[in-house]
Amino acid sequence: MLGERLARDARREIKAVMLVHNETSTGMRHPVAEARAAIDAAGHPALFLVDTISSLASYDFRMDEWKVDLAVGGGQKGLMLPPGMSFTAANEKALAAAQGARSPRRYFDWRNMMKEGRQASFVGTAPMHFFYGLEAALCMLEEEGLENVFARHRRLARATRACVDAWAAGGGPQVFPLERAYASDSLTAVLMPQGHDADRVRNIAEARYGVALGRGLTTLQGRVFRIGHMGDLNEPMLLGALAGIELALRDAGVPFGRGGLEAAQAALAAP
Amino acid sequence: MLGERLARDARREIKAVMLVHNETSTGMRHPVAEARAAIDAAGHPALFLVDTISSLASYDFRMDEWKVDLAVGGGQKGLMLPPGMSFTAANEKALAAAQGARSPRRYFDWRNMMKEGRQASFVGTAPMHFFYGLEAALCMLEEEGLENVFARHRRLARATRACVDAWAAGGGPQVFPLERAYASDSLTAVLMPQGHDADRVRNIAEARYGVALGRGLTTLQGRVFRIGHMGDLNEPMLLGALAGIELALRDAGVPFGRGGLEAAQAALAAP
Amino acid sequence: MLGERLARDARREIKAVMLVHNETSTGMRHPVAEARAAIDAAGHPALFLVDTISSLASYDFRMDEWKVDLAVGGGQKGLMLPPGMSFTAANEKALAAAQGARSPRRYFDWRNMMKEGRQASFVGTAPMHFFYGLEAALCMLEEEGLENVFARHRRLARATRACVDAWAAGGGPQVFPLERAYASDSLTAVLMPQGHDADRVRNIAEARYGVALGRGLTTLQGRVFRIGHMGDLNEPMLLGALAGIELALRDAGVPFGRGGLEAAQAALAAP
Amino acid sequence: MLGERLARDARREIKAVMLVHNETSTGMRHPVAEARAAIDAAGHPALFLVDTISSLASYDFRMDEWKVDLAVGGGQKGLMLPPGMSFTAANEKALAAAQGARSPRRYFDWRNMMKEGRQASFVGTAPMHFFYGLEAALCMLEEEGLENVFARHRRLARATRACVDAWAAGGGPQVFPLERAYASDSLTAVLMPQGHDADRVRNIAEARYGVALGRGLTTLQGRVFRIGHMGDLNEPMLLGALAGIELALRDAGVPFGRGGLEAAQAALAAP
Repeated sequence: MLGERLARDARREIKAVMLVHNETSTGMRHPVAEARAAIDAAGHPALFLVDTISSLASYDFRMDEWKVDLAVGGGQKGLMLPPGMSFTAANEKALAAAQGARSPRRYFDWRNMMKEGRQASFVGTAPMHFFYGLEAALCMLEEEGLENVFARHRRLARATRACVDAWAAGGGPQVFPLERAYASDSLTAVLMPQGHDADRVRNIAEARYGVALGRGLTTLQGRVFRIGHMGDLNEPMLLGALAGIELALRDAGVPFGRGGLEAAQAALAAP
Repeated sequence: MLGERLARDARREIKAVMLVHNETSTGMRHPVAEARAAIDAAGHPALFLVDTISSLASYDFRMDEWKVDLAVGGGQKGLMLPPGMSFTAANEKALAAAQGARSPRRYFDWRNMMKEGRQASFVGTAPMHFFYGLEAALCMLEEEGLENVFARHRRLARATRACVDAWAAGGGPQVFPLERAYASDSLTAVLMPQGHDADRVRNIAEARYGVALGRGLTTLQGRVFRIGHMGDLNEPMLLGALAGIELALRDAGVPFGRGGLEAAQAALAAP
Repeated sequence: MLGERLARDARREIKAVMLVHNETSTGMRHPVAEARAAIDAAGHPALFLVDTISSLASYDFRMDEWKVDLAVGGGQKGLMLPPGMSFTAANEKALAAAQGARSPRRYFDWRNMMKEGRQASFVGTAPMHFFYGLEAALCMLEEEGLENVFARHRRLARATRACVDAWAAGGGPQVFPLERAYASDSLTAVLMPQGHDADRVRNIAEARYGVALGRGLTTLQGRVFRIGHMGDLNEPMLLGALAGIELALRDAGVPFGRGGLEAAQAALAAP
Repeated sequence: MLGERLARDARREIKAVMLVHNETSTGMRHPVAEARAAIDAAGHPALFLVDTISSLASYDFRMDEWKVDLAVGGGQKGLMLPPGMSFTAANEKALAAAQGARSPRRYFDWRNMMKEGRQASFVGTAPMHFFYGLEAALCMLEEEGLENVFARHRRLARATRACVDAWAAGGGPQVFPLERAYASDSLTAVLMPQGHDADRVRNIAEARYGVALGRGLTTLQGRVFRIGHMGDLNEPMLLGALAGIELALRDAGVPFGRGGLEAAQAALAAP
């Protein structure tokens, strides 16, 4: 679809293709490399912009290899910081576009940022505490090894989906992404069975069992809840959260198939 | 037995009866009030000393009502502090005994401690950080309400035992205390099936799943592991730990009955 | 001057008067109540907007009494938080203006914020840690008492200026604001003697003595350094910083009058 | 004196010579190497035991070079930990003595500790938090470099004594150790002028200026206060503390010579 759309743009009016690597509201992982291939196949000069906020440090992202021109990331997901720090990386093509762009800019302007390697003038007080936190987070990631971090998130994600699949088999909540190959490794969006309110489950889970779940956004509000499994998380933390969600489903009178926890355990024990 | 033994002590050679309220190595809760009644029934003047280290703030202890003469407690269990702070409470009878006792004392002497309400001389640097921690812990306990804290530990203990009972039903590990009425609310000692090493399970649980279990002490080493469920703990934390132990049992090739997590959940969901 | 300027605005083209309560770059305290009086005297309907970022919780600000229509504040100064939290307060008049304003708004729109008491839609992840920090900061301010906090800052500010005045008496750095009545209680800007570089002093102070000083902004860069004396600060912390600055002045070869620390001490000891 | 005393001990009844490296209550540094030389010169077989609690990591201690048989240290001084961790190091000679000693031992017994490299049986809950703290402290010391740490303490100690000497020149408090060569680099004991109460100064310093001073012990109580300058301390922290003490002296009506802070600054600025 992307390739077709770009091919139709004979006058090159499309300036950029923007993709969210990990779609937080639906738990979808978007195919960055494939999108890049489609842009290349169409021979289109559009910039390729990728939002990696909820994928960064949870699963693999390759800016250079995938020829991403500009990427944004955040510290509050896989990098385990409190919310408040974000990142932008731009390649030569993106910086060149910034030079010529005519959009009004004041708060953040690449042209000033690159000049003499610093901002041109004073814009506020630097939040130093985030830099200390980031240093600690990067040490943790290096100690575990990035490949191991990715493998851990993959394993935890599969266990989560195995649990939800067992719920679904009994007429209960199900994994939201239909195409399993695109299900995210950093969070799982869970679709409620018809007639049951996701927010009621979320409220019970938090109030009675201390499990905080993400809510469905915009059109999915009340229909979806989201289980985050990114960052500093291990097997018992995930299994405890899934067990707590089951307690909340039970209290809320939501039907669900049994054996979810065993399915998750089986997925975690597999070699 | 205690009453009989005291009754036989016609010459009053027994100076004190000492009881561990919560026997940490076996997960037994000892009946303090009943022991007091036995001492009273025997009309014996022995001091009644109780160690509350692993029961304090996890379940009820009533020094005055149970006429305990001297109690010791620790900060590192139900009071949630790092190890390093302990408490002693003494009534008039115990303090009077301290005046006349002939045992050598230097490091800790009630006679000096009570004089002018302070230690008589310098004995070291006060570990102030424990006092700040204790203040925070007491605030947490007050905020939840001591009765609610006790009820929470009772609920979590029952869920733990329900899980282990399911394991035992399949030839797996079982709750160590035979008499269930005396099983502890702050930890559960779990006896391995014949021919299986508790420490192997402990090592796998910690190394692969991040679940730290207590070991069996002295004669129980290798035969028992212990699940602590005291302090700042809620349902998903406990269920996650139990699920992690199941993974370790599985990896270690230890048989266990299925349905443990469901049994624990059922115990937690009961009104 | 403000009154004259407003009086000349017969066609009411001036929409708002904006004042920085504490001018951080120069260490000036601006007279909010007097500005309000000038607006009132001119009978001008302009909104009155005040930036309290570096005055809030350091010295007195009275939004209602001074009929300020809109105020902004920040957490990183007198409220002692790491940078990242800011506040806005608006009265009925300001909110009414927000309804009719034609400026483009997306990131922050009072109309959405006020609807149902919340933001109309999702704009990001809430930085919860700032709320915990703010709660702690407000407890500290309440415990000391706001009047005492203000008095402490006034005392520390006077001591700082007494020290700098002693430096100036020997041809050294001097307090930047000429009119002492408007010198700030939350920081002191210090003007270097001709031919001496403020940034050199700042670099030595930080590298050798661990004293971090603010730099001069825009046209004052290199000519001014700034001593912050807001937030969680007491007498020895201030005196130590002043003593460290003296060491840096000495190392940098900047002349300064002797007796600065004694003058500061005398100011602090006064009843 | 030590050599003479040992020489008189023809029957070798003296089992050990015990020395406090840094005498915390008086601020004296004791000459360990010289004591060793005296023992050697007397040809006496006594064990040489040294308490390094308040010198360790503040100034140099060389167990092997000075042939110290057993040393004890603590974490709460130069190692910057909260109180609660101590260290013991023993050489072959001390361990051999432990084998044959007849003193009763239960809580700490080298014979058990060395067996299989661990304690023989359970003695309590390990205070893990101290090990994390110690790791951080050692990293800080390595980052600065031990020689630099020692030089910093020497510099800060000299500045402290320069300040107190200025006080003394005006009939005020004076450095307690008469022989300056033995004045400690980790704290300075300060003797009050006749008729003035050290504890009154300490109370004012703490209550009004937030400067916590050590008190005089046993016979020195009320006559001495102690300024700690060990651990994580830099120039402005020390100068601020000295300035705060001057304020307290002034408030308490204690005479003192002027120029103390300038003298301390001069000592710190010297190349």
